[in-house]
Amino acid sequence: MPHISLPEGLPGITSGFAFRPETAKPMRELAHVLLHGPNSLSPGERELIATYVSSRNDCYFCQTSHGAAAAAHLSKDWGLVDQVKQNFQAADVSDKLKALLIIAGKVQEGGKRVTAEDVAHARELGATDLEIHDTVLIAAAFSMYNRYVDGLATWQPEDPAMYAKMGEHLASHGYLTPSTGPASS
Amino acid sequence: MPHISLPEGLPGITSGFAFRPETAKPMRELAHVLLHGPNSLSPGERELIATYVSSRNDCYFCQTSHGAAAAAHLSKDWGLVDQVKQNFQAADVSDKLKALLIIAGKVQEGGKRVTAEDVAHARELGATDLEIHDTVLIAAAFSMYNRYVDGLATWQPEDPAMYAKMGEHLASHGYLTPSTGPASS
Repeated sequence: MPHISLPEGLPGITSGFAFRPETAKPMRELAHVLLHGPNSLSPGERELIATYVSSRNDCYFCQTSHGAAAAAHLSKDWGLVDQVKQNFQAADVSDKLKALLIIAGKVQEGGKRVTAEDVAHARELGATDLEIHDTVLIAAAFSMYNRYVDGLATWQPEDPAMYAKMGEHLASHGYLTPSTGPASS
Repeated sequence: MPHISLPEGLPGITSGFAFRPETAKPMRELAHVLLHGPNSLSPGERELIATYVSSRNDCYFCQTSHGAAAAAHLSKDWGLVDQVKQNFQAADVSDKLKALLIIAGKVQEGGKRVTAEDVAHARELGATDLEIHDTVLIAAAFSMYNRYVDGLATWQPEDPAMYAKMGEHLASHGYLTPSTGPASS
C-alpha cells in the first residue's frame, strides 16, 4: 500500500505525478529531453541506460517500463534488454555503449565513483562530451525517479502486457503526457 | 578538472546547466517548486532537508550552497545547519522535521528503505501527505543533483563568501535563473 494517499489505479510514477502536478511537469520534461529528444545516442541506447540503472536500484516499475520502451525501440528484442541488465559486457551492444554503461553504473553508486579513466575509455570508443554528459545525467535522474517510485511505495502491477503497452506509448510519444489512464479504463 | 569541457568559471551545477540548457530548464524548475514554491514546510526546512541529503551524499557544492540558502532563511544560523548535518536529533528543529529527516535519510540510501512506521511516525507528529511526498521527492531529487555535480567532476570553489552570496540569492529569488555569473565577473 502506498505510504500516502495516491490516486488509485495509476501505476508507479504516474500516481505520484497525478498527486503533485507541479513537480510532475519538470520531471516529465527532463525525461523527455534525456530519453526522447534529439541525440546522437539512439532512444533505444538511452532507454537501455535508464533500464540498467533502474535495475541496479532494484526499482521494478522503472526497469520494467523503460525496459519495455527499450524493447519497443529495439525491434522487440527483450532478450537484449535482459542481457544488458544481467551482464552488459556480454550483450550485443556497441563498445561505446558498454563504456557508457560503466559510467552509468558508477553514477548509480555515487557521483565521485566516476574516474577520469572511465571517461577517457568512453571517449576513445567515440563518445562525445554531450553523450558522456547525458549518460551521467540519465543515471543521476534515474537515481531520483527510482527513489521517488519506491520511496512512496507506489502500486506496481506485474502484468507484462501493461508494461509492453506503456513501453510502446513511451517509445512513440515520449514523456510529456501520461502513457496510461487508470488501469480500469 | 571536469570530466568534460564545461564552461569555465561557473561553480558546481551551474557549469552543467550552462553546458546543456535543455536539461537545465526542467532541473531548475523542479528545484524551484520543491524548495521555493508555496508549501506548508518553510523554505528553511526544505533547504535543511536538501542540505542533509547532500551531506550524506558527500557533495561539497550542494551541501554548501543549500546550507547557505538554509542559513539565509534561518537568520544566518549556520550552527543549526551544521548540527542538522552532523546530528539532527540533537538540533533545535521541530520533531516533525526530525521525522521527515529520517525519511529523507532513508530515501538517500534507497527508496525501499522507507517503512510504513517511518511515515506513520511523521504523520503522528503532524506531517501531511504533501509534506511527506515533498520530503521523499526532495531527497530523491538531491540524489540526482548530487550525482550530476560530482559525476561530471565539476569545479567546486571553497570560498565561503561565494556560497554565502549564492545562498542569499537562492533564498531571495529561487532557482529559475542563474545565481552567479562567471566567478571572475
